[in-house]
Amino acid sequence: MYPKKIAQDTAKVLQSYLTYQAVKTVIDQLSETNPTLAIWLSHYTSNSNIQDGEGYLEKLMVDNKELLLRILTVREHLAQNVLEFIPEMVNSNIVKANVEHRRHLLERLTQSPP
Amino acid sequence: MYPKKIAQDTAKVLQSYLTYQAVKTVIDQLSETNPTLAIWLSHYTSNSNIQDGEGYLEKLMVDNKELLLRILTVREHLAQNVLEFIPEMVNSNIVKANVEHRRHLLERLTQSPP
Repeated sequence: MYPKKIAQDTAKVLQSYLTYQAVKTVIDQLSETNPTLAIWLSHYTSNSNIQDGEGYLEKLMVDNKELLLRILTVREHLAQNVLEFIPEMVNSNIVKANVEHRRHLLERLTQSPP
Repeated sequence: MYPKKIAQDTAKVLQSYLTYQAVKTVIDQLSETNPTLAIWLSHYTSNSNIQDGEGYLEKLMVDNKELLLRILTVREHLAQNVLEFIPEMVNSNIVKANVEHRRHLLERLTQSPP
């Protein structure tokens, strides 16, 4: 196992996921204040590769710099507010899921054949 | 913004990502000790929906319970070793990326036209 490499890859995936969540949040906000722009950003995002978060933002810089700056701010804010809870949540969810899978397996193994 | 909902969704994504990393780790280990089983698990995973981590594990329970138990153990181990570093890594990567995007935008805006 290479925990350092896995941690780096996980951080990358999470950064892109928070970019996606920031874009979604901005679309939600705009749908209240500026529906036309909300629709524009929504279409723009569907036609872009948001999985590559930084590439998406670089492209948006050319196409709408105000939205880029807004997404950067929301993403930073999300990271500060969301990330601290994540390790404990994921750890406890995984422990719970493992108990559940092992219990389920035990049930299968001890089932009397019909 | 709904940070609680976003935190829950983020935790879910991360749990599935760690399942994928655990499967990858087990395939790596098996390729040293039992190449035939490594190939089997690799094919099995390509033909399954690993994006739904828990569904993948439930299916594997029927098809190879020893591998299921091994993946559960590796995943729990990964979670314990990797997650604690993630918030700081992602926060600092996002701050750095934002500085970079803003610098890049400033360069574009202050470029004298050709």
